[in-house]
Order: sequence, then C-alpha cells, then structure tokens
Amino acid sequence: MLNSRYVEMQNHENVIRRVFMYGKKRAAEIGFDNIFDYSLGNPSVAAPESFHKALAEILAAQDDLTVHGYSPSLGIGSVRQAVAASLNRRFGMNYEEKHIFMTSGAAGAVAHALRAVLEEPGDEIVTFAPYFPEYQPYVEGAGGKLSVTPACTDDFQIHFEAFEKLLNPRVKGVLVNTPNNPAGVVYSVATLARLADILTEKQREYGHSIYLISDEPYRELVFEGVQIPYTASFYANTFTCYSFSKSMSIPGERIGYVAVHPDSDDAEVAAAVFGQISREIGHNCPPSLMQLAVARCLEDTSDLSVYEKNKEILFKELPALGYGCVKPQGTFYMFPRSLEPDDTSFCERAKKYELLLVPGSAFGCPGHFRISYCIPTEKVIRSLPAFRRLAEEYLG
Amino acid sequence: MLNSRYVEMQNHENVIRRVFMYGKKRAAEIGFDNIFDYSLGNPSVAAPESFHKALAEILAAQDDLTVHGYSPSLGIGSVRQAVAASLNRRFGMNYEEKHIFMTSGAAGAVAHALRAVLEEPGDEIVTFAPYFPEYQPYVEGAGGKLSVTPACTDDFQIHFEAFEKLLNPRVKGVLVNTPNNPAGVVYSVATLARLADILTEKQREYGHSIYLISDEPYRELVFEGVQIPYTASFYANTFTCYSFSKSMSIPGERIGYVAVHPDSDDAEVAAAVFGQISREIGHNCPPSLMQLAVARCLEDTSDLSVYEKNKEILFKELPALGYGCVKPQGTFYMFPRSLEPDDTSFCERAKKYELLLVPGSAFGCPGHFRISYCIPTEKVIRSLPAFRRLAEEYLG
Repeated sequence: MLNSRYVEMQNHENVIRRVFMYGKKRAAEIGFDNIFDYSLGNPSVAAPESFHKALAEILAAQDDLTVHGYSPSLGIGSVRQAVAASLNRRFGMNYEEKHIFMTSGAAGAVAHALRAVLEEPGDEIVTFAPYFPEYQPYVEGAGGKLSVTPACTDDFQIHFEAFEKLLNPRVKGVLVNTPNNPAGVVYSVATLARLADILTEKQREYGHSIYLISDEPYRELVFEGVQIPYTASFYANTFTCYSFSKSMSIPGERIGYVAVHPDSDDAEVAAAVFGQISREIGHNCPPSLMQLAVARCLEDTSDLSVYEKNKEILFKELPALGYGCVKPQGTFYMFPRSLEPDDTSFCERAKKYELLLVPGSAFGCPGHFRISYCIPTEKVIRSLPAFRRLAEEYLG
Repeated sequence: MLNSRYVEMQNHENVIRRVFMYGKKRAAEIGFDNIFDYSLGNPSVAAPESFHKALAEILAAQDDLTVHGYSPSLGIGSVRQAVAASLNRRFGMNYEEKHIFMTSGAAGAVAHALRAVLEEPGDEIVTFAPYFPEYQPYVEGAGGKLSVTPACTDDFQIHFEAFEKLLNPRVKGVLVNTPNNPAGVVYSVATLARLADILTEKQREYGHSIYLISDEPYRELVFEGVQIPYTASFYANTFTCYSFSKSMSIPGERIGYVAVHPDSDDAEVAAAVFGQISREIGHNCPPSLMQLAVARCLEDTSDLSVYEKNKEILFKELPALGYGCVKPQGTFYMFPRSLEPDDTSFCERAKKYELLLVPGSAFGCPGHFRISYCIPTEKVIRSLPAFRRLAEEYLG
C-alpha cells in the first residue's frame, strides 16, 4: 500500500552496495583478511587532528544552546562566511555568505541543485559516463530525465560530439564530477573551457539558463603534480557541490555545501531556493556541531597519502598484468578495462579469487570495472597475485 | 529561471520566523532584555549531562572510522536496536531493529512518512487545527493535499464530527501531534481510541490502509500528573515520528526516528521504503556521531522544570487578566484566545508592549495566539505587566 514508486526503487538497488554486501557475507565465511574488498568508496583513514581539536574545543568552550541549537535553515552565518572566504582565497572567487548553502554532504548538495534547476516533467539533465549511479535517483526524484553522454574511454575527458548531440531546449542542467568517480581523472582546463563555451552558446540559443552542477567531493584528493582547475571559474552559471566526507574522512557526519557562483543568473536567490527545498523535505540543515567544527579546519585534510601509495602500486602492476587503464590523477578509484567485454561476468569471475570489483556498467560504461583502493596497502599488495591469476584465466 | 514553485514558496514564509526576525531587529534597537520574545519553540536549557558524557566517551574511546564513518542508510543497527528496546520497555510495544528508521529530526521523520503514504496527485492527508504550519509544505512537497479539521476550541481534543466529514477514499494518512504545538494539550485515551475506531472502520470501507502519522517531538515534555498515552498502541497502522530536539535540547543536531508499528500493513517494508525516499533526496542518514550519542542516553532529558514553572506562572496570571486559555498539559506552548477576533491585529498591537506573540491563524486556528514560554522565568515574570497593559486596552 505504500507509494509504489519507492517500493519499486528497491529493485534497482545500488550495485556497489550489492557487491559490498556479498563481501560482508563472504568475510563471515572465510575471514575478512582473506577478502580483497575493492567495492566501497569509504574513506579508510582517520579524520585530521585539527578536526578532533575543533570538536573538543567547541564542546568544552561553548554553551549548549550555541553548539546544539537550531541552525538557520541556510546554515550558520559564520560558517557560510568561512566557507566563502576559503574558496575565495584558494580559487580566486568572490563568494559571499549569501552564496553558500550548507547541506548534508555532496549528495544533499547535488539533489538540492537538481531540484532547483528542474522545472517541468521532461526537463533534462545531461551527465557523462562513467558517472556515479545515484545520479539517476536524484534526477528522477526531482522529476527530471537523466541523459548520459557516452564515455571517451581513451582519457575519460568529455566526448564533446556525443555531448552536443544530447543538448536540446529541455536541458536545464549539466552534471559533472571531477576528480571523477570511478575513473579517477581530473577534467583538464581545455575540457572545462570547451564545456563552458558550448553551454554559453546553447544558453543564448535556447534563451534560458543551463546550470553546470559540479559535484566535487574528491577535489582535495589529487595526486602529486596534478593541478585541479576550479570548475566554477570557467562558467558563471555553476553550482559547486562539495562534501567534507572524503577530504576529512567524516562521511557519516553528512556535511557539505553548495556554492552559488556570484555572477550566476540566480545568484541572489539560489540559496534561498535551496532553503525552500530543504523545508519541503523536512531536512532543514546539517548538524550544527559539524558545521561549527569543519569551519575551524576548512582547508585541512586527513593524511591521504595511503591512497596515492595504493594507486602507485596498482597502476604499476595491473597494466603489466594486462589490465589497460587510464592513469588516475586523484580520488581513490581507478577504472581499468575488464578482460572480457561483459564486465558483469568478469566481476563475477573475479570473486573466485576473492576480488570484489564493481562492474563498469553500473557507471554507464561497460567493459570496465572500478577498483576502490581505500584499503590498507598491505592488502593491496596481497591482492596482486589474485589479479594475476584472474588475468591468466583470460590471457593464458 | 530556477524552479518557480520553490521561488514562489518564499512568499509563504513561516509566520513564526517572521515574528522572530522582527524580535531580532527590535532587540538591536532597544536591547534584548527589553523584548519579551515568545515567538520561537527553541529549547532554552542545556542538554542532559549524560549526553555530554556520551559524546565525550565516544570521541575518546572509539576510532574515527566507527564514529565518523558512513551509517547504513536506515541508521546504525545498534542504535535502531536500542531505540526499539527503549520503546518496547516504556510503551509495551514489540518493535525490532527493522521497524526503526533514523531521521534528521521529527521534520525529516514526518516528511518521509508522508512521501511513503501518498501515491497520486490528489491524495489527501487530514490533520487537526491548531497544527504546526510546516505540515503544509511537507504535504504539498510530497504531492498531496492537506485538509484541516477545524479546532475543538473547548479542549483542543478532536472535533470528530468535522473530522469524519473530511474523510473520503483519497485520504491516505492522518497526521496528529500530541502533546500539541501550539495548544499544549495531550490527546486523551478516549480521543485516541475513538480516532482508531474511525480509521479502522474507514480502512475497511475504502479497502486501503490509512496511516496514522503521529508527530511526537514533545512526548517527554509533559507536566506533573499528566499521563501521555502512546498513540501507536491504539492503532496498528501508525508511524511514530520522534525527535530528540526538545527532550534533549539538541535541535541543531537533527536527530530523530520513525518507528513503524510491528503489526502495520507494511511493517516489513516501510523502513526500506523510507530509505529509498532518503536516497532520492540525497539525504542518506542522520549524523553518525549523534546517532551513537543519543543511543547511550535514550531515556534521559534535559532539566525541563523551567517550562513547567513558566507554565504555572502564565496559566495562573493570564486567565486572571482576561486571556481565556485551555490548560496546557505539556510542551512549552500555550494557546490563549486573542482579545479581539482578528488575532493578527491583536499580535500587532502586542508589539507595542514588546510582546512577541504568534497569531493563531498561522496554526489554522484564528482568534487565538501562541506563547512559546521556553525563555527564562525572570523574563516571564517581567512580561506580566505587559500582558496586563495589553489586556487593559481591550477590557478597560
């Protein structure tokens, strides 16, 4: 008797979670140490010391009504100011408090941004394969249609010809994710500049705004020597969606923000519109203690070096074993080619060696698989023979 | 260019918040001490010591990946078990972990419950005046229509004749709030039993479930001698929506739950359906640290005695001044009759004496006004001459 759409959604379960649940079951059978669980993008390192210190200081020094009291529905003013100032300093922007809306993680940020830009049934959002599978429920829940640009599998930048074919007057937003889950690549200056040019032209042609929704929870997870361009600096109509989940390893605390470009068409009202969306879903605001805590250590990160170390090992060893792979520039993911065209069958076969991998088709990009290497390095090393034996099945 | 419905919603601003914002402005002019701000239902006491202790112990003893890591999307298992056990012990229920869904406060709980029971445009939810004004956006946001049973102003129990007239096959849920904001009354055993009888009969007549959504954030705020019946024990198809905001004075931390009655028609699937709703809005789960903390002190409350003390003073003095009022049995609200039929004009006039009151029409019950007496007792006492002078304007 409950809403049939939500009941039905249970049948489209998150594939990533299904692999993870299999891993839990298998670990109970043969021991957690014997499973190489590369399924979940779950940070595996401690939060930064400054975050611990911030929590302790706030709890010790401030009164309960300040720390645990209602947050204004757009977020605590001083926190929004601190976020704006940090973005301005780091990326040469001009955000003010009014442009920052505090959310429950990047998921909440993206979902709010989508609801703000979608108006009528049939309105479209374009994204790019490979893409985070939960974009689908966010867009559909907001009443829109997600259309997916096929992947450019040579470098996982944008396949612009395919992208332009998908553009039409119903497109209200374009959703990008850089550094990318699952490919691990960072969109280049050339990619972002060309994307901005196309969107600028299409806005003119269609006579309405097309918002670029930039999902950037991995912004701080880039590897040595990689420069990450700030998406919003290329295109005014950008909503920048961020989460502290990955950079500070606090995914359970659900804290992030949307930053509204000060020169965007709706710069003066967007945050208030997001507030109305929150009001309707009964969400109100992210936890006040966490808002206050992250504001004290906005630019700090966990010790993320383990991810780079794991990447070095895997990106050295796997291609040598026959797994072709675009070089990851950040995140804790890589996205090699599966050794048979059917990536689901490939990932099934990998289970024989206790390797838990996620099929690329879950990300709209068949023929690949995702490795989430946010696991201890010793386990990465121990998993290499399993990857070798799996490769031998195919390549002899 | 942003979604016009949300842009338009800004024009239907929360009246309570408007009064509060006026108060802030006025306080800046004449000093906070000179304002009698009875507008907001914002807890004014510290969190319980056991909550502080729980936070400190968790942060000191447990590793970051446990404390700040992803929560399962329905809530942390041990927390759901603890909530179920506590409700079973206190209210003679038989909840299991699978019946508890952790939410971001009662607002999140009610909004999820509404989305779960509403199916098609035109489906209806019935509530009872006086009612919390944010029910309107929750119901409309879920695609439903809110119909309001006129108040029974003698005792603020249910006006059953009026209620039965509103029932029809489009009604999918009935939304109650006991102890009631703004009336401060508790629904009696007789009220809940009769409500259950009517709903049971109508379910049979219409051939579908009608869910009772019981919004109970004030359950722990009842005054001496008052027994509060547990709504779900009267009717199987009940979703009990709770928040720790008021009982523990932690409204900023956004933590609550929905408890699904074990004998309800959808007992096995409801929590999973709520999970799909969360997935779609990008909300995922309430903060993990707060889940873990409240689980350690589920039955503790702040020292709530100040609310009862304030109630004693106001309920002794105001009726003597001519403000007719039903006796509050809990919450930190009371809901006297305004001294002129136009409650908005009455509340405007009250501002002359620096009294900030919320018009009853904001709660669907004109001719009354709400007093939120979660303020220091000394201020309540200092406000009495203002109430007297206001009464003298009307009664001479």
